[in-house]
Amino acid sequence: MPAKAPAPKDPVRPPLVAVVGATGAVGREALSILAERGHPADRIIALASARSAGERLPYADAAVTVAALTDDFPACDAALFCATADIARAHAPGAVAAGALVVDNSSAFRMDPAVPLVVPEINASAIADARLIANPNCSTIILLTALNPLRERFGVARIVVSTYQAVSGAGLEAVAELQAQTRAVLDGRPAEPSVFPEPCAFNVFSHESPLDPATGLNGEESKMIAESRRIWNDPGLILIPTCVRVPVLRAHTQSALVTLENPATEDDLRAALAAAPGVALLDDRAHNRFPTPLGATGGDPVLAGRIRRFSPTEFSLLIAGDQLRKGAALNAVQIMDLLT
Amino acid sequence: MPAKAPAPKDPVRPPLVAVVGATGAVGREALSILAERGHPADRIIALASARSAGERLPYADAAVTVAALTDDFPACDAALFCATADIARAHAPGAVAAGALVVDNSSAFRMDPAVPLVVPEINASAIADARLIANPNCSTIILLTALNPLRERFGVARIVVSTYQAVSGAGLEAVAELQAQTRAVLDGRPAEPSVFPEPCAFNVFSHESPLDPATGLNGEESKMIAESRRIWNDPGLILIPTCVRVPVLRAHTQSALVTLENPATEDDLRAALAAAPGVALLDDRAHNRFPTPLGATGGDPVLAGRIRRFSPTEFSLLIAGDQLRKGAALNAVQIMDLLT
Repeated sequence: MPAKAPAPKDPVRPPLVAVVGATGAVGREALSILAERGHPADRIIALASARSAGERLPYADAAVTVAALTDDFPACDAALFCATADIARAHAPGAVAAGALVVDNSSAFRMDPAVPLVVPEINASAIADARLIANPNCSTIILLTALNPLRERFGVARIVVSTYQAVSGAGLEAVAELQAQTRAVLDGRPAEPSVFPEPCAFNVFSHESPLDPATGLNGEESKMIAESRRIWNDPGLILIPTCVRVPVLRAHTQSALVTLENPATEDDLRAALAAAPGVALLDDRAHNRFPTPLGATGGDPVLAGRIRRFSPTEFSLLIAGDQLRKGAALNAVQIMDLLT
Repeated sequence: MPAKAPAPKDPVRPPLVAVVGATGAVGREALSILAERGHPADRIIALASARSAGERLPYADAAVTVAALTDDFPACDAALFCATADIARAHAPGAVAAGALVVDNSSAFRMDPAVPLVVPEINASAIADARLIANPNCSTIILLTALNPLRERFGVARIVVSTYQAVSGAGLEAVAELQAQTRAVLDGRPAEPSVFPEPCAFNVFSHESPLDPATGLNGEESKMIAESRRIWNDPGLILIPTCVRVPVLRAHTQSALVTLENPATEDDLRAALAAAPGVALLDDRAHNRFPTPLGATGGDPVLAGRIRRFSPTEFSLLIAGDQLRKGAALNAVQIMDLLT
């Protein structure tokens, strides 16, 4: 496999893309998205910790071999960091120095004023000439992708949102924990929590990220507030989030109540959502069909619907998006596509 | 088993209690609660449809035998109707005529001005001399039990609530569907929805009750609004509900944002909840422990916590209550206890 070779500049050849954290939930999804797009396997560098080196990961009909991530970042055109904030802090600067455009999925650089925080449908222009771009938190991406068309047409002053978050946001171990615990419960055996502090099988619990003792906000909620204000460049945005895990494998759902700055009708909102990039409207009252996490799983668009008007400026929506795709890997690949 | 015998009036003997719909999810829970309280099996009349007649239902260490519900309601002191609205409409008047105090769990009489709609912790006095009392919808009971102490001390002007509702609200078939579908998904087999319009295993979906095409509210949401206004005798209460099913077996969770009429602190709310009947405060930021449906399952109190203040009058809470107990059978037994 290629490593250390200078990144080829031939415009006909697809970019040489490093995926850091290739064995994780988001890394595997990034590989899957690149493979779906026909990106050739020999233009992929799969990187992970030394203990995964040599592992073969499925890629289209073939496989790619994992190499160890070291301090000497391989030359490449783009690097998708799908690992922890610590790994991003340790290796992203080296990847930029090695010539890569870096898109980081972790929280490491999201609030760094020098690093743009980007959802391509919303603020692609913020990238300018940056070579390191931060991918927002999954809940933030899914919420803002759905609400941005409303913001553009009517203004958004305030959002109250309760989430129904899949376990995949906590990694592959969390997905395995939900599956194993669920089987145990069905078989009458005890469900032993390990990844999560609470049982996840047939249960619902407040998001496990640490809480700020002063505000009571957990980390996920704090990220949603700070990142949404930054992406929308709206420090006065009022966002009241309650982040909750549900026993779902990989897509997040959100129940949002939005206060617009200008009055609108339900049909105004439907029209705005139907025309929006990255969004699919699903609002079928006659058949009681609205966004669900299963419906969003594996797809690119964020589903939005169940629009109800409670006052001329107050509307509720249900939103669902694949946390591993638009909420993480897809958004990162879309950023890379803008620049390579 | 006793049937048709006149209800004994001896004050030392426990009341003779008919449970209508004894084979259903709520009926079984009513039997379980009566058994826990030491109510003797020979003071129970278990009624269900003719096809269940003769079935033996577990009761404490023994069992009770199901008799067929006919137009000739047996004499008894109290009848807990745990069946459909149609059955309640057909048989509750006959039960009252037969001398029973009737508590109906269905929606049949909830909006009838002549029938009190009661949560004992909130409006027991509304019963007056009524012999037919309606038990509210499960989501309404759980929400109002938790919020009533806040209303009493600070006033409640507005509630925004998103629910995380267990499948048990749709009956025992729904519980079986979640279990069977979940096992199928884990085994790589397709999940075929039958009771619900959407797959329920590892999924989340907007509540399956029919929608009002004009407002977009589903039946569950319309009930929450109308019943809350009636129980609190507050026709101006603003309630913005979004009712959602989650893959949980039997307790409902709610994420509520409450606007109080008077300013308060988080500690004010904690004190009010800690002192309230029927409520258990669970608000442990240090250990990230808050109400969960598993924590509420099998218990009597509604759990309330994760109190956060977003303005002097605006607070969020997580609430969880056993849908089959306080949300249905327990509330009905508590009403009966007030009167027998």
